[in-house]
Amino acid sequence: MAFNLSHIHEKLGVTSSHDGTPVNSITLFVLLLCACVVIGHLLEKSRWMTESVVALIIGLFTGIIILLSTEGQSSHILLFNEELFFIYLLPPIIFNAGFQVKKKQFFRNFMPIILYGVLGSIISFLIVSLGTLQFFQTLDVGLLDLGDYFALGAVFSATDSVCTLQVLNQEETPLLYSLVFGEGVVNDATSVVLFNAIQRFDLSHITSVNIMQFLGNFLYLFLTSTLLGVAVGLLSAYIIKKLYFGRHSTDREIALMILMAYFSYMVSELLHLSGILTVFFCGIVMSHYTWHNVTENSRITSRHAFATFSFMAEIFIFLYVGMDALDIEKWKFASNSPWTFVAASAILLGLVLLGRAAFVFPLSFVANLTRKSKSEKIGFKQQVVIWWAGLMRGAVSFALAYNKFTSSGHTQLQGNAIMITSTITVVLLTNVVGGLLTKPLIRSLLNPHPHSYSIHSEKSLSLPLLLNGQESVANMDTGNPLDSNHTVHYYWRMFDDKFMRPVFGGRGFVPFTPSQTDRALY
Amino acid sequence: MAFNLSHIHEKLGVTSSHDGTPVNSITLFVLLLCACVVIGHLLEKSRWMTESVVALIIGLFTGIIILLSTEGQSSHILLFNEELFFIYLLPPIIFNAGFQVKKKQFFRNFMPIILYGVLGSIISFLIVSLGTLQFFQTLDVGLLDLGDYFALGAVFSATDSVCTLQVLNQEETPLLYSLVFGEGVVNDATSVVLFNAIQRFDLSHITSVNIMQFLGNFLYLFLTSTLLGVAVGLLSAYIIKKLYFGRHSTDREIALMILMAYFSYMVSELLHLSGILTVFFCGIVMSHYTWHNVTENSRITSRHAFATFSFMAEIFIFLYVGMDALDIEKWKFASNSPWTFVAASAILLGLVLLGRAAFVFPLSFVANLTRKSKSEKIGFKQQVVIWWAGLMRGAVSFALAYNKFTSSGHTQLQGNAIMITSTITVVLLTNVVGGLLTKPLIRSLLNPHPHSYSIHSEKSLSLPLLLNGQESVANMDTGNPLDSNHTVHYYWRMFDDKFMRPVFGGRGFVPFTPSQTDRALY
Repeated sequence: MAFNLSHIHEKLGVTSSHDGTPVNSITLFVLLLCACVVIGHLLEKSRWMTESVVALIIGLFTGIIILLSTEGQSSHILLFNEELFFIYLLPPIIFNAGFQVKKKQFFRNFMPIILYGVLGSIISFLIVSLGTLQFFQTLDVGLLDLGDYFALGAVFSATDSVCTLQVLNQEETPLLYSLVFGEGVVNDATSVVLFNAIQRFDLSHITSVNIMQFLGNFLYLFLTSTLLGVAVGLLSAYIIKKLYFGRHSTDREIALMILMAYFSYMVSELLHLSGILTVFFCGIVMSHYTWHNVTENSRITSRHAFATFSFMAEIFIFLYVGMDALDIEKWKFASNSPWTFVAASAILLGLVLLGRAAFVFPLSFVANLTRKSKSEKIGFKQQVVIWWAGLMRGAVSFALAYNKFTSSGHTQLQGNAIMITSTITVVLLTNVVGGLLTKPLIRSLLNPHPHSYSIHSEKSLSLPLLLNGQESVANMDTGNPLDSNHTVHYYWRMFDDKFMRPVFGGRGFVPFTPSQTDRALY
Repeated sequence: MAFNLSHIHEKLGVTSSHDGTPVNSITLFVLLLCACVVIGHLLEKSRWMTESVVALIIGLFTGIIILLSTEGQSSHILLFNEELFFIYLLPPIIFNAGFQVKKKQFFRNFMPIILYGVLGSIISFLIVSLGTLQFFQTLDVGLLDLGDYFALGAVFSATDSVCTLQVLNQEETPLLYSLVFGEGVVNDATSVVLFNAIQRFDLSHITSVNIMQFLGNFLYLFLTSTLLGVAVGLLSAYIIKKLYFGRHSTDREIALMILMAYFSYMVSELLHLSGILTVFFCGIVMSHYTWHNVTENSRITSRHAFATFSFMAEIFIFLYVGMDALDIEKWKFASNSPWTFVAASAILLGLVLLGRAAFVFPLSFVANLTRKSKSEKIGFKQQVVIWWAGLMRGAVSFALAYNKFTSSGHTQLQGNAIMITSTITVVLLTNVVGGLLTKPLIRSLLNPHPHSYSIHSEKSLSLPLLLNGQESVANMDTGNPLDSNHTVHYYWRMFDDKFMRPVFGGRGFVPFTPSQTDRALY
């Protein structure tokens, strides 16, 4: 129906690419995504590159080519769109992370995760806010009010969970993965509360009432977001178990899982909770209960399909960021005062490094106090990796900065333009440098088990299927017998087996009814 | 990041729902999709209902509730959006149809498919155009020019392939399925040519040059669209075979298949070809070559994931159409002259019935002339089913009518308003009546094999996996030995085995390298 689309082009100037036709842009974008997948595959063996860096670099190159071919008019083919990011790209990534996360590791490290995610984010936020307030006064960056400085604190304390997934490997360094990624998820809830707090209170007069209010808000948000995710996950398990969808269609099972996960995210956003936290816990519950209630084919399909969509959304984001970074309009103001821009970027980068160091090392010390056995403690080398791996700022910082410092994509004020270009610089630098150096850093500091490296992605996905769930049992039961959480975990297992699994299904509580395929194979 | 979305709400008035917040709308929409999946599952055993009818009815009910709760202000939560339909919803449906289609059946019936799809569409187009030109003059429908009548012909001769997939079953009635669905795919190419022809030529003076030009255009469009789809499909097979993606990631394989299929559709639209035809052949080639080059897990995942996305897109469309049907603005004009509206709808419905009868029966007679054996001929009862099953008009007619008779969703002129409401009426009537009566009609006329009914969806998907591709061999080799196409098929197999498969992979030409899972199972 080509004729129809040509009409659409005229009607929808909305997507507002420079050449006017979204079909052009989408086609080019899809082609670039293909290129990222292929080139990322070819560079897989490299010890330096991650997929995100490849996508970033391809995006930058494309930006340069478009810039040259349009004679400096424009560099991007799609404007950065918050709706696209928060409604379509982020949910599959976070849901998949919850779905594939090693639950035991995550819950075992709950204490340090909360410490880093809540206290750490606040410390980082304060250091960046107060630091910029201190240093930017001497620079001539243009008009910035107090709210702008605190906004900068929020922009640069929002860690990017997506980047973490790219540089850390769940199979290789499970402890670090769960710490840094878990921190990223909790960090999102903290950011929501922080942002609301900035808008409501006068932060220059911090009173004990304010602090109590902040903590109360955080607790409320954290609990309701989590409960919502758990409730939707349990509901999906119950519906699929009761109605026995596998009877005639595995497609309906998968459709329902996708739709309900997405529903949890959207409802959470609608109620002004943390969608990231909600959909993460929804993913955890779905992999613990719902996944065991579906047919064998649905299990394989859901694992791989969710991972694929998360993967595509990730490279999409990085391609996007790379391509948008060269947008000429933003750099116009910055080039008027290049030294201000360089100084501002350097200050921000320094504050990010400092802000993270200021909470990782002290809070690790606190977390280690609660851990008795030596093998459980977070060592200094691991702390260095946690500090480094969480430095990357990505699409979330991007989206926040755009939200605060631009109006509908345009940067009129000089101060705002410099804030945007500095954000782009920090995001690009932390991603490229972080993406290139994290793997070698982990290798030299920690020497992780080498064999698991080459086959990790295949292994992590097929093992649970291979052993029909036995692998996860092993995973649940290993661990230090001196584990302080052992009793909690023991009672949870009792409760789970006695009350939860009989109702919601789960491993061992669903009659094993092989699908057509299984019957032939077993 | 709830705070962010609330900003987005303000910025993006684009989606223009009555309550202003797209998050609301999306949440409700996702919830309704869940309801459709669950209710569709519960009604599965019913011999009458199809999923599409369930979605339509739920959409209508929701429309009524919104209409009442907003006191008659609005009934829809999302405006019908052509971009959404043609760029995001249609491609996965058509691609999946090509991917899962029984290739032998499709190519064996190529001749009648081309006859129905090209000549049939033109006959139907002429009857509806000339019929409305005749009858609407006596009605006081408001200003319509000659182009409007021919546009009506195009709107009501565009069959909806999506509806066909819902009412006919590939396992139960393979011949009818391939005929009616194949016709739908070819019909799309014809529609593109017809629409361009209307815009360029003065159709009231039909000359032999015009007709030759039309046929030349059609041949060019058909061949280039098909070749593009085949080329992209082969490219995907070659890349995945050469680079051996399965080595470390099945996710990349699936991502590449999805991205390249989508790329074929978008390039085709960009070149003003028929994207439907292109992505359909891309699906066929991918299932013939690419699918055999990926890991076992990717095979299972791709089959089910593509089917799931097609399924979700289908219920999305019908929910959409049902919800949009009650939009109050369109009915305002129609209610001013209710009799004109009823008469116009009745005339259009009659012409659709007549236009289809006028080509199905004569062209079936022509097609039967080329078929020697009696078992191969298309019987009269089958012709009746073909006539009936292809009557449904769906989202494509909808999109065309909106494109022609509205400007940005509003219906200012009385004539246009009546055309829109009549289109909605015809779409709803053909869908509800057709959806309810097709299954009983097939059952009473043809008495298909009953056993395959209850497990069809599971069977069709798992069998190829179960027998590791042997089922398709059987499927390819059965058939009448007197088959007139036998030699063509024989030479194609020789060519395929000798030249195509060694390069592009395919069944038996890829070393069987089981993934981790397979090794444990075999």
